[in-house]
Amino acid sequence: MKFITLTTDFGLADWFVGTMKGVIFKLAPSATVVDLTHGIAPGDIHGGAFALAAAARYYPAGTIHVAVVDPGVGGDRHPVVVETENHLFVGPDNGIFSFVLRGERLRSIHRLENPEFRLAEISRTFHGRDIFAPAAAHLSRGVPPGRFGVRLHDLVRLPWPDPVAIKSGLRGEIVHVDHFGNAITNLGGTRVLESRATGVRIGAHRVPLAQSYNAVKPGRPVAVIGSSGLLEIAVNVGSAAKKLSLKRGSKLTLA
Amino acid sequence: MKFITLTTDFGLADWFVGTMKGVIFKLAPSATVVDLTHGIAPGDIHGGAFALAAAARYYPAGTIHVAVVDPGVGGDRHPVVVETENHLFVGPDNGIFSFVLRGERLRSIHRLENPEFRLAEISRTFHGRDIFAPAAAHLSRGVPPGRFGVRLHDLVRLPWPDPVAIKSGLRGEIVHVDHFGNAITNLGGTRVLESRATGVRIGAHRVPLAQSYNAVKPGRPVAVIGSSGLLEIAVNVGSAAKKLSLKRGSKLTLA
Amino acid sequence: MKFITLTTDFGLADWFVGTMKGVIFKLAPSATVVDLTHGIAPGDIHGGAFALAAAARYYPAGTIHVAVVDPGVGGDRHPVVVETENHLFVGPDNGIFSFVLRGERLRSIHRLENPEFRLAEISRTFHGRDIFAPAAAHLSRGVPPGRFGVRLHDLVRLPWPDPVAIKSGLRGEIVHVDHFGNAITNLGGTRVLESRATGVRIGAHRVPLAQSYNAVKPGRPVAVIGSSGLLEIAVNVGSAAKKLSLKRGSKLTLA
Repeated sequence: MKFITLTTDFGLADWFVGTMKGVIFKLAPSATVVDLTHGIAPGDIHGGAFALAAAARYYPAGTIHVAVVDPGVGGDRHPVVVETENHLFVGPDNGIFSFVLRGERLRSIHRLENPEFRLAEISRTFHGRDIFAPAAAHLSRGVPPGRFGVRLHDLVRLPWPDPVAIKSGLRGEIVHVDHFGNAITNLGGTRVLESRATGVRIGAHRVPLAQSYNAVKPGRPVAVIGSSGLLEIAVNVGSAAKKLSLKRGSKLTLA
Repeated sequence: MKFITLTTDFGLADWFVGTMKGVIFKLAPSATVVDLTHGIAPGDIHGGAFALAAAARYYPAGTIHVAVVDPGVGGDRHPVVVETENHLFVGPDNGIFSFVLRGERLRSIHRLENPEFRLAEISRTFHGRDIFAPAAAHLSRGVPPGRFGVRLHDLVRLPWPDPVAIKSGLRGEIVHVDHFGNAITNLGGTRVLESRATGVRIGAHRVPLAQSYNAVKPGRPVAVIGSSGLLEIAVNVGSAAKKLSLKRGSKLTLA
Repeated sequence: MKFITLTTDFGLADWFVGTMKGVIFKLAPSATVVDLTHGIAPGDIHGGAFALAAAARYYPAGTIHVAVVDPGVGGDRHPVVVETENHLFVGPDNGIFSFVLRGERLRSIHRLENPEFRLAEISRTFHGRDIFAPAAAHLSRGVPPGRFGVRLHDLVRLPWPDPVAIKSGLRGEIVHVDHFGNAITNLGGTRVLESRATGVRIGAHRVPLAQSYNAVKPGRPVAVIGSSGLLEIAVNVGSAAKKLSLKRGSKLTLA
């Protein structure tokens, strides 16, 4: 049983995701295809990279993760397959694998160029269907990465925004706002605990650190160490993003 | 072939649902995981309970239904597994199983506390991943509910809003507004037919009872017995919620 | 391994799609059920027909495609199963199969009326659950189409809006706007290339023809031959629909 996950910015209103699945099943009828998310904002490579990093490691060894957030489709970025100790990653070489690879031991990177493992016709606008889905299907049937094309020696890498030590403590930023309006920061939980801070300053607000969302009254903001091990700003039974006007890039300080 | 369904308020924009599936497949690679819905409004236990009650009984006997609408995550509500004659239910004990259990013969309730059947680290914010998904996976592999923790004797129950007999007939309310803008009431079809009513009064409107949406002209409101056996207010090729300003809790009278 | 795809206007907020899957799995536990899309606008038969035509041919031979965009549910349109050389199609006879059948050799059309292959109770509002899902499940288990009901000789057909030759060139229209804001036209790629046009006129704009989205600067409009073989108007890293105020039915001219 081979698992193939999909992460895209295609949304679910059109037939794009369903078409990729058809291509996969035609070539690998016994694959199990799972959606990580198709709700990445159009062209948001950073958001796709973050989602992939949060979810991929929970999958069985040998899983093939396809990630297609690809504003440069039809241009000259390489389509690639990346093999690590645990997983295979398939997608455009545009930074989408930056964060997930921080926790993985790299084995190889190959370009997807062998026409044997693509659809017969390649459009200029839908490589998810024509290049990436067939590659995942062939990989799931045991085709080794080396057969897809020449070996590459590096990938495009997005910088991870590391927190910065400042006089009054540690300065971080919001790296993702989720569906509930929780704002995830780049401050790792261990570092937060070691700092002995009791709260964060964000804009005009001081938000207390606590163990869980409901350590504060409904409607009140709270900072907790979230499920990815990163500090997040939440509002108990509410949206921190709305209440505190937070978005990706908003700065905060441990205090 | 073991079926596991998922009902959450996680939405599809983030990696939460995809992560739960990874956890399940790592432990139970041959499970079939099916989404009931992830579009419950954030924290809307009542809405989740209603969706679960509408869908669960259409699944094969032995299906494991995971429902995670959990505004109290990280607090002191119990995580539980409920066994009935037909199904297993996994989630927080906060009322989410209230409506689905009205039609099921209860066998047992157990707390999910055995660390053997949880992930090694338990976050305070994502029990769907750390507690509920692993529980479902282990159940699907045959671990009996009794091995998860102590037996409980009751669950939190949400009241079902029963219709009220009044002088001029029967008074009910809207319990759900669906994607099409159809407004589902708490008035059971049998009771509606027995009342010999020919319509409903809702706000300033009188809406005729009919057999199907298109018994009236396009754009006109109509009351029909819907697919859950409950009376619903619809507009033929339109949205009753918009046209008549209906929402959950809106009152109506059979007349 | 039998594939069943689903295309509906049910959205993902309610339990409708999840309920159809339960009905299928109860009857055909080893079927693989795949979502094409549930994001068709409510009652938009044309949009559903377009999505189905774009995706269906990428599926393995023998796939059963269920399409339920059915504003006339409970009325007198026929529920049907259509067999072609490659696939089976299940849904209401209201035009939903018009476009996908343009590329398929028709074998038979049958009405879905045999109570043996429906749920025991048929609601007036949810034939997806009560008629179409059970039909797909029984077909996947090998029940031949002829056993479902009488043979029909034709289907309702939506007209495909063919481009019109005019003095200054070729006049077409937008047939779909996708999630990215790309506006797909009814102008086939071959015909565009043969015309030797170098651009399109749409409203007050002249948009240049090019090979890919990023042949123009970010934010600039461009016309490319898209993944369905049709000309589409795009904006590099942006939304053509927003920037040029395009919607289905907007007219354009090759020039």
